[in-house]
Amino acid sequence: MAIDIDIPPLSSNLLDEARARLDGLTKPRGSLGALEGLAARCHAIRGGASPLVVAPATMFTVAADHGVARQDVSPYPQAVTGQMVRNFLEGGAAINALCAVAGMDMKVVDAGCACPPFAPHPMLVAMRLGYGTEDMTQGPAMSRAVAERAVEQGIGLARDAVGEGCACLGVGEMGIANSTAAAAVHCALLGLEPASVVGAGAGADAAMMARKAAVVERALAVNRMDGRRDPLDVLAAVGGFEIGVMCGIMLGGAAHGVPVLVDGFISTSACALGLAIRPGLSGYVLLSHVSAERGHAMVLQSLRDRFPELAPPLLDLGMRLGEGTGAAVAYVLVKCAAAVYNDMATFNGAGVSDSGRQTF
Amino acid sequence: MAIDIDIPPLSSNLLDEARARLDGLTKPRGSLGALEGLAARCHAIRGGASPLVVAPATMFTVAADHGVARQDVSPYPQAVTGQMVRNFLEGGAAINALCAVAGMDMKVVDAGCACPPFAPHPMLVAMRLGYGTEDMTQGPAMSRAVAERAVEQGIGLARDAVGEGCACLGVGEMGIANSTAAAAVHCALLGLEPASVVGAGAGADAAMMARKAAVVERALAVNRMDGRRDPLDVLAAVGGFEIGVMCGIMLGGAAHGVPVLVDGFISTSACALGLAIRPGLSGYVLLSHVSAERGHAMVLQSLRDRFPELAPPLLDLGMRLGEGTGAAVAYVLVKCAAAVYNDMATFNGAGVSDSGRQTF
Repeated sequence: MAIDIDIPPLSSNLLDEARARLDGLTKPRGSLGALEGLAARCHAIRGGASPLVVAPATMFTVAADHGVARQDVSPYPQAVTGQMVRNFLEGGAAINALCAVAGMDMKVVDAGCACPPFAPHPMLVAMRLGYGTEDMTQGPAMSRAVAERAVEQGIGLARDAVGEGCACLGVGEMGIANSTAAAAVHCALLGLEPASVVGAGAGADAAMMARKAAVVERALAVNRMDGRRDPLDVLAAVGGFEIGVMCGIMLGGAAHGVPVLVDGFISTSACALGLAIRPGLSGYVLLSHVSAERGHAMVLQSLRDRFPELAPPLLDLGMRLGEGTGAAVAYVLVKCAAAVYNDMATFNGAGVSDSGRQTF
Repeated sequence: MAIDIDIPPLSSNLLDEARARLDGLTKPRGSLGALEGLAARCHAIRGGASPLVVAPATMFTVAADHGVARQDVSPYPQAVTGQMVRNFLEGGAAINALCAVAGMDMKVVDAGCACPPFAPHPMLVAMRLGYGTEDMTQGPAMSRAVAERAVEQGIGLARDAVGEGCACLGVGEMGIANSTAAAAVHCALLGLEPASVVGAGAGADAAMMARKAAVVERALAVNRMDGRRDPLDVLAAVGGFEIGVMCGIMLGGAAHGVPVLVDGFISTSACALGLAIRPGLSGYVLLSHVSAERGHAMVLQSLRDRFPELAPPLLDLGMRLGEGTGAAVAYVLVKCAAAVYNDMATFNGAGVSDSGRQTF
């Protein structure tokens, strides 16, 4: 079985149409920089509908646990994954505060935490794929069937959200040890060296970072990974439930014509898998930010080299928290782009003299 | 006469207090990057009041004309300044769209446009200091008395806004040819070369940029500028009415304990004057973004070298529009910082295990 999804290429006609509209608005051409590129891209993603609608938006914060946590790769105990899920549901985490400012609805997806199930809650989506993955240094983190199920569940979440009127999605995550799994995914897909990709995650010191690199090396060796493998095999071998679900949300959002904001290092590993499954995803994902996690800038550059349609990351604020926090902040830029696109006057309409000599 | 204003130094106790609070919130320490620095700074600027309040906020878009426009330094005719003021008042400009998304009130200040006066409007602050400045290549742009008045009027605007409850200010501008005036101010204050500071402004081509550099050279020679001159003399010789008013708004905002968001290249020239008048301003101004205007990054670096308390610019989106557009986008980051600071749970309060091994 393989993932059944169709992502149409972005329409170059719609991109041109958007650029022509932007050039007629009362500002020097191109002077809103990345906001103009964002507006044009969203116009094409949304199929050219007028006005450009990017709200309401939903943030999916996807949580799961990782067997590799027992390799001492995080300064926090595994119990923190479940504790933070409760914190999300109670509204006390950074992602809650930032979604409130950005104006995003928030869903918390339990994709496979290792603690007892959570009590029902309006924000909670309970879809456990297991009680944490297996330890990837001993064999695959999950079976290929479960990896496919993870992606398909994500596709379903996106399809349902868009069906309910959602016009933009964000993805983020929570999972102790998941920066180790994400580093392994990046190395497997992009052919990068573990020692240059692993970072501090939630706060590893130098000794722990060296251990993380060795753990990733071991996982890649035990699972005999190579770059030619099917991306679903990579997800099964060294990924995580939340990484698979986020990958599916991106694919599903693209297939249903909404932009998807990618958060940081771990979300980017889900994006890398999605791009390997469907390269056409590159037009639909918005890279929110360069995080302070050490390997993130390199991974983003490697992806942009392979998928030139990927737009550069929007923000560089030294953030390294995950949960979707960078994506929530970046969603405001999407709203800014749409407001400019929809609400500004044209030179003709406003009686403002355009310049005949612009070079931009 | 000199500017009569007192800006107290930021309290290091309040900065420490804010950092301690941020370290107890449910996230790895420092993991929100620039948002944490912003929250700590705003806590200190606002005098340590709890909760940290940064709304409502007002954007002052200050417009004026420039005699140097007759030296053919802009691709747009001078009439566009007044036309854009009308566009602001009718809600059709980029700054209107972005203030709406960011949640900022907007005031349009006529500091000295060259067109007939504007009809009264709730958003309009009519305080003309002249019908455009004089041509700085022929002598000073304005008298020293008018330069002082410009700054004092800006201080009054900030004082009144804070008096009405405003908790954060932004400044931006509109004025055909004002990137030439701003370049001259930067050169005079920072000892930089005109050829490296002038940029495309609203869309100059290479020939026009060369002319701008020559015009700045001539203005600096005619007015016999040197770096030791009083900043008010620099403002009088090569500045602009809107630059003086923006400088005053920054000084007034700082004196009355609210953060002030600085927009792009031209707003930064007002900030540079304000820092020369009161170096203590450096703790209170927030550099919104690095614009795509060629000299902006260099000018920001030069200012940060001289005033180490200046925080790095928040955004780098390739914007080069002015009006306050970068400051409006950056205001959302201020709101994000305040939300994190006020609304997140602590490790103890949320029952989340903190790590004993964090190195950050």
